Amino acid sequence: MKISIIAIGDELLLGNVVDTNTPFMASLIDACGWQLVHSCQVHDDPCDILFAVKDALKRSDIVLTTGGLGPTKDDITKQVLCECFNGKLIFDQSVADNVHRIFAERGLVMNELTETQAMVPDCCKVIQNMTGTAPIMWFEKDNKVLVSMPGVPREMRYTFTNQIVPRIKQLNAEKSGAKPMLHSFFLLEGINESELNMLLQAPNTPQPLNTIHVAYLPQTGYLKIRLDCDDNDTLTQASLQFEQLLGDKIFAGGDQTPAQALIDLLYQNHLTLSTAESCTGGNIAHTITSIPGSSAIYNGSVVSYSNEMKINAINVNPEDINLYGAVSTQVATQMAEGVAQLAKTDCSISTTGIAGPGGATPGKPVGTVCIGIKTPNGTQSATHHFNGNRAEVIERATTRAIILLLRSL
Amino acid sequence: MKISIIAIGDELLLGNVVDTNTPFMASLIDACGWQLVHSCQVHDDPCDILFAVKDALKRSDIVLTTGGLGPTKDDITKQVLCECFNGKLIFDQSVADNVHRIFAERGLVMNELTETQAMVPDCCKVIQNMTGTAPIMWFEKDNKVLVSMPGVPREMRYTFTNQIVPRIKQLNAEKSGAKPMLHSFFLLEGINESELNMLLQAPNTPQPLNTIHVAYLPQTGYLKIRLDCDDNDTLTQASLQFEQLLGDKIFAGGDQTPAQALIDLLYQNHLTLSTAESCTGGNIAHTITSIPGSSAIYNGSVVSYSNEMKINAINVNPEDINLYGAVSTQVATQMAEGVAQLAKTDCSISTTGIAGPGGATPGKPVGTVCIGIKTPNGTQSATHHFNGNRAEVIERATTRAIILLLRSL
Repeated sequence: MKISIIAIGDELLLGNVVDTNTPFMASLIDACGWQLVHSCQVHDDPCDILFAVKDALKRSDIVLTTGGLGPTKDDITKQVLCECFNGKLIFDQSVADNVHRIFAERGLVMNELTETQAMVPDCCKVIQNMTGTAPIMWFEKDNKVLVSMPGVPREMRYTFTNQIVPRIKQLNAEKSGAKPMLHSFFLLEGINESELNMLLQAPNTPQPLNTIHVAYLPQTGYLKIRLDCDDNDTLTQASLQFEQLLGDKIFAGGDQTPAQALIDLLYQNHLTLSTAESCTGGNIAHTITSIPGSSAIYNGSVVSYSNEMKINAINVNPEDINLYGAVSTQVATQMAEGVAQLAKTDCSISTTGIAGPGGATPGKPVGTVCIGIKTPNGTQSATHHFNGNRAEVIERATTRAIILLLRSL
Repeated sequence: MKISIIAIGDELLLGNVVDTNTPFMASLIDACGWQLVHSCQVHDDPCDILFAVKDALKRSDIVLTTGGLGPTKDDITKQVLCECFNGKLIFDQSVADNVHRIFAERGLVMNELTETQAMVPDCCKVIQNMTGTAPIMWFEKDNKVLVSMPGVPREMRYTFTNQIVPRIKQLNAEKSGAKPMLHSFFLLEGINESELNMLLQAPNTPQPLNTIHVAYLPQTGYLKIRLDCDDNDTLTQASLQFEQLLGDKIFAGGDQTPAQALIDLLYQNHLTLSTAESCTGGNIAHTITSIPGSSAIYNGSVVSYSNEMKINAINVNPEDINLYGAVSTQVATQMAEGVAQLAKTDCSISTTGIAGPGGATPGKPVGTVCIGIKTPNGTQSATHHFNGNRAEVIERATTRAIILLLRSL
């Protein structure tokens, strides 16, 4: 199943907006075992859209377009698709009803422009948009499919995941008798893509692990691995072999982030968490509280950016700051213990370091971060070194700290 | 000056990586007054690259490619460009020297694969890569230009900004006698793109503001506006007219974020800042501490996710939590005052609200956020409502809180 994506919109070519729709669809396409052969971004221009559609229909079985469906004059995708698939725009009552429903839900008043949303090509199958007003359109011609979706990321993500992927799966099954793809996920630390690749292709790697399809999904500070197979028994066997081979590198399973894995583990063990952050400046707190339900295990953080905050809020000994420096394992340990006491939690994480670009001192270059980890069994602190600019050091220290606590429990 | 971009790399079509190179270049291309006519992502496949290059050379004066320049077997861009521009690969001593320099700086050992980096097409001008090992290549043919750049974002950004844009400017000046484009930036709140667009095109809008090129750069929670003109006097006049027309909507000028503007303003006024965050969960602290130099004005934050943290760390009255609820202007005021006292700062920001998806109560739907602002003149708190999912509510509340303090000073 070969697929192409066309993202339509002037804003994508002006650099105002990063096209996150294409990688979202690309990832799901890969997970389904299909192939994304080409993607492009074009202006809201009839000639450009028409050229891109014709080109994409040549390259692929399915063409996905996003954007160009709003009610304003810029949006001419529907007209172009009429030309391409030999149709004309007609009024569709079901789309009008859907637009009225959405407007009523949001307490908005309809205007004339919005009613033009209900005009759709007579040569397509309309799929109702559950999260917005622009209709989704499914065209078929010469054994090829074109699906036109809205460009608003929230609408596109819902539509593609829940309404389009299942239809493509069905189409694929009808055409080829293919079974749906199954997946198994692992999160690893301490090994990179090429090392893992060599390991999986080594002569002594057992069947079926040495032949199963592996997707390498590198993240900041860790590696996410997806095993793909359409046979459940084979996938289970390969997953067990993967666990045996990489046991010490795997810190979590499942399609989740380290923060989600940590929250689940703490919740299962009836443990609570707090954080004391200096160089990560609140990013650990933000990463944890971004996850719904985190309040069940997370009590809060002290971002002790100044020494006074370290001393007054979480009881760090000022003499130790003078003696060892604010960036030291001694201070990290006291921060972790101090915040756990203040927030009354079983576990805590602390960071103190130099995110850069300034702040380096002899023996403590930019990227030096002391991380403290407190569990019910005690507190451990160590000095780590991270590469990259300020944002990268902050992100890597955040991820490492979360993985360290995960591994300690 | 018409430009096309081709991003090369399997990873872009597998959804592992979001292509941020294209929007980075797109934004700079637009700022220079040039036009990005098309962008696409292609696999590390010779046929796909060749087809994309030929197509792009037809569409545009300049073709920019990123990626496909690593030393591994996947990277076949150089061979394809030889075929396209009728050349062959030759050894280039200056590139070899550059690769040796980079390896020595990083303390790495050369291997054979890396030395292949020094093989370059004999039909291009080599530009040394200051931040990596892959050479930058500039091809010219039939009055068209193709520039091949590395795909690593850090290398591409440095190369494009400092080595390629100046060369394109020179080329453009030689061809058309065009003057360089000048810019003026404004950050606005309380007006959207279409309202501003109508205002600027109204009959009573003065010259030259009604004709100057305006770039609308919508951000989460505010609107960034860029006025573009190649004549300094016209730009100054239009900027003054813009300030007069939109005075009350403008909260900062310059090409910066609200957090940067806030840090600068606090620094100029010798004021310090702390934050107390409940629903934003550390994101205000993270947003501020992401900016280098923020430690000069920022003392820290208390992320008081639990009521105990509100009571114990920043002295919120437990009776008021019972009486008014944790999400109330009363609690927001006490949080702002409590953290300012703890951190010994002149100003503070507090947030307490419901980011969702759970947690809504009668009269306090998801998206309700009370924000407290303390300045040397006193403390003000108010209830705000934000749309969107959890991440959007957190981001919008963060931006609004920062803008509120900016406006209060």
